[in-house]
This record gives sequence, structure tokens and C-alpha cells, in this order.
Amino acid sequence: MKATVHIFLKPGVLDVQGKAVESALHGLGWDGASNVRVGRMITFDLAALDAAAAEGEVKVMCDKLLANPVIESYRVEIA
Amino acid sequence: MKATVHIFLKPGVLDVQGKAVESALHGLGWDGASNVRVGRMITFDLAALDAAAAEGEVKVMCDKLLANPVIESYRVEIA
Repeated sequence: MKATVHIFLKPGVLDVQGKAVESALHGLGWDGASNVRVGRMITFDLAALDAAAAEGEVKVMCDKLLANPVIESYRVEIA
Repeated sequence: MKATVHIFLKPGVLDVQGKAVESALHGLGWDGASNVRVGRMITFDLAALDAAAAEGEVKVMCDKLLANPVIESYRVEIA
């Protein structure tokens, strides 16, 4: 099974990388870009019996290793 | 308009971050995880007239700033 995890900083947490990208875009003339947020995306293959089991397992992975649940939120997709 | 850019290393380019995550997952007992790839996801609001114009503009942004087209591929979504 193919798992995809999207990890973003929680709303309200200052996204310094996003701010840097935003000011770089403005510097290049794209003044219309705003609210830039930079996140991570992790994809992997997972040996699991069914999608529900895979999703539960990936959520445990996120809480233990992939994301920092204090400041980051994540979304799991199983395909 | 809301733009989302997914940026990944091209297939064949060594993904050291992905390898590190993979061995960490194995170390925690998840031996079923393989082919781990870590990418970036950038979301932002964009002032544009229509979706086609926005998509073209975001692709130029990717080529100029957001991605490294030599080793990275990207996918643009406009919503």
C-alpha cells in the first residue's frame, strides 16, 4: 500500500521558511502571492493488510517520528 | 486562488532524507516501510484572473525559485 503523509506547521505557528519564500517571491515581482506555507510530504510503500490498518499504523509513525505533534499537524492518505 | 505545489526529487536522484527516515522507521520496528521519499509542499494564495493563468504563473515560479528543475520535479494544483 502507498502511504502519503502531508505535514504542516499548525496555524498560528510562525512559518519562517514560508515567510522567506514569500519575500523572495515579492522580490521577484510576484506581489500577488500571500500566506505562503511550506510543509513536508513523505511517501512510502507499506506492507499492511488493509487500508484502515495502514492508516492507523501511519498515524502512530507520525506521532512517534515523522511529525512534531506539538507544532505540526498531519494528514494521512492511503492508496 | 489557492495554489499548491508538490516538489519531489526526480526518480533516480538519491533521497538522503528519505533514506534516513526509512532507516529510522526500520529502527522503530516498522520493517514494512520501503521506498521512502521526502518532498516539499508549498501552499499560497495567489491573485490571478483565472486558473489557467495562475497555473502558468506558478510554473514559472517553480522554475525560477521554488524548485531546482535539475534534480526536482513538481506538480501544481490550483483550487
